[in-house]
Amino acid sequence: MKFRGYAATEQGKPLVPFEYDPGPLKIDEVDIAVESCGLCHSDLSMLENQWGVTQYPLIPGHEAIGKVVALGDGVNHLKVGQRVGLGWRSRSCMVCDQCFSGNHNRCATPGQNADTVVHRHGAFADKVRCQAAWAFPLPESVDPLTAGPLFCGGITVFSPIVINHVLPTHRVAVVGIGGLGHMAIAFLKAWGCEVTAFSTSASKEAEARSMGAHHFLSTRDPKALESAAGRFDLILVTVNAGLDWDAYVKALRPGGKLHIVGAIAKFEATWFPILAGQKSVGGSPVGGPATMLQMLDFAGRNKIRPIVETFPMSKINEAFEHLKHGNPRYRIVLAQDLK
Amino acid sequence: MKFRGYAATEQGKPLVPFEYDPGPLKIDEVDIAVESCGLCHSDLSMLENQWGVTQYPLIPGHEAIGKVVALGDGVNHLKVGQRVGLGWRSRSCMVCDQCFSGNHNRCATPGQNADTVVHRHGAFADKVRCQAAWAFPLPESVDPLTAGPLFCGGITVFSPIVINHVLPTHRVAVVGIGGLGHMAIAFLKAWGCEVTAFSTSASKEAEARSMGAHHFLSTRDPKALESAAGRFDLILVTVNAGLDWDAYVKALRPGGKLHIVGAIAKFEATWFPILAGQKSVGGSPVGGPATMLQMLDFAGRNKIRPIVETFPMSKINEAFEHLKHGNPRYRIVLAQDLK
Repeated sequence: MKFRGYAATEQGKPLVPFEYDPGPLKIDEVDIAVESCGLCHSDLSMLENQWGVTQYPLIPGHEAIGKVVALGDGVNHLKVGQRVGLGWRSRSCMVCDQCFSGNHNRCATPGQNADTVVHRHGAFADKVRCQAAWAFPLPESVDPLTAGPLFCGGITVFSPIVINHVLPTHRVAVVGIGGLGHMAIAFLKAWGCEVTAFSTSASKEAEARSMGAHHFLSTRDPKALESAAGRFDLILVTVNAGLDWDAYVKALRPGGKLHIVGAIAKFEATWFPILAGQKSVGGSPVGGPATMLQMLDFAGRNKIRPIVETFPMSKINEAFEHLKHGNPRYRIVLAQDLK
Repeated sequence: MKFRGYAATEQGKPLVPFEYDPGPLKIDEVDIAVESCGLCHSDLSMLENQWGVTQYPLIPGHEAIGKVVALGDGVNHLKVGQRVGLGWRSRSCMVCDQCFSGNHNRCATPGQNADTVVHRHGAFADKVRCQAAWAFPLPESVDPLTAGPLFCGGITVFSPIVINHVLPTHRVAVVGIGGLGHMAIAFLKAWGCEVTAFSTSASKEAEARSMGAHHFLSTRDPKALESAAGRFDLILVTVNAGLDWDAYVKALRPGGKLHIVGAIAKFEATWFPILAGQKSVGGSPVGGPATMLQMLDFAGRNKIRPIVETFPMSKINEAFEHLKHGNPRYRIVLAQDLK
């Protein structure tokens, strides 16, 4: 049996049709027939070997929606034909202290954890395989055509809401209105918070407000940020750029938190305002499986859908080009058209 | 009526006997006849105008133990003759959102908050005045002769234990075994944690263990820190020096927290390990009144006493000299000898 998809065979080359033998299905694994898969910046990072861990050939794609087509002998909680989603993480050991405490996404047991597109093939393919625990049943309430991006981008911004114990009484800012930020605004609006969207692009104000933001603030205007001094319980940063962190710390209320999910290189800030204001700064990667289930339930109940542009999977190179240069609004999904 | 103490009349000058008229007692204030007062690094910072806010003449001293000798008309919860302690903070507005939520130490209401030695006189004097809410009854279980340092240094390291939801199952490191660090070790030991003491000075190992540390690690040995990779739920930094923060981040468990109460100038770290490990870094100043009461009760019940060297108050200049150059073990207390 072969899985067929689109792979980069070496760095800098376009993706081409590629097939591979996934080997025997392990008892705790499932195969998923991919219906669609979101395209994430991390796919681009992997494709271009920006993190130095890419092995070619590589089929990227780690925001998959599809139907279970094969179950390992030990899998009892899923059924063939069931619609599931798969995100960044595809395996955890299940028995280390991180897994035991619900943080399976932080499992670091050597040889016993895997990420969907690191040293294995992802979901821009007819099928993708993963540990069954990481294939989450998609609730009926969640639209399958737009659900893919929830599984990596969505959980990446939902998890900080949970981690930081955000309450509906909080004032929260979202920095960057892109693939991640637009989902963050929708989650926080539904969470009951007062939401302020920060963007470099003033043209995004109307869109941000339509997503649920109560306020909009241009990050190109230093006075706007100054005027928000002491305002936010949480500032969620979804951009990858180094910012004037002192100014963002200043915009936090006493006790407030700066949470950065963007892959910035370095964080640097004057300490005294953090100490005096009992502030903190943290980061997080995706989220654990319990948080994933909460997110899916919450998204379904609140009709939260990623806003996507859809390409057929066969147009994958155009989709990557659009991600890189086209400023997609806000997330790209590739729909299955492999025969 | 005059209060008599020891003041610096200008920057860089030794302290000299000084008296001042405190004015009429407000209805929410108390006067405390000082029995002893701890000497904190912040007194030195204020004395030398390191923070640019010092007004001379200044009587420093903000870790006072003494007896209430006068009560404002509106004070019902204290009695004349009752022994109390006063720390860094001496007034809060009581009605802002920070005060209402128990964080009176973070009250920033203009004109309605005060710190004991900022733009007012402190406790190296026969008497000191404060808002009654900031004069905390000293439990019988707490030794008054050594209690002063609890009120600023003590609460500064106790509060992070509360803020960070430290559990007895946690592994905690304390960086720096000085005025703050030695109290942190004692608190964390009594809290039930596994405690590791970090010091530049290998000679402090025996002392650290006698304070309750289970492990000792020399910060001069980079391999020692490396060997602790992924170990700590919390690293509490009590030193004022910039350290190799990347190495400390690495020593945190996934989900772990770096908490810096030292007045470092700047914090700088590579972001990816923080993001990938769901780590965070924060700071805090002293603590709120409820935390203060918890600390006093906890210290009394667990017989936690600051380890102090005592000087008579009249030797205040020698005491400051010892703080600056003498490497006191571990905190200095000035005992009242003003007639």
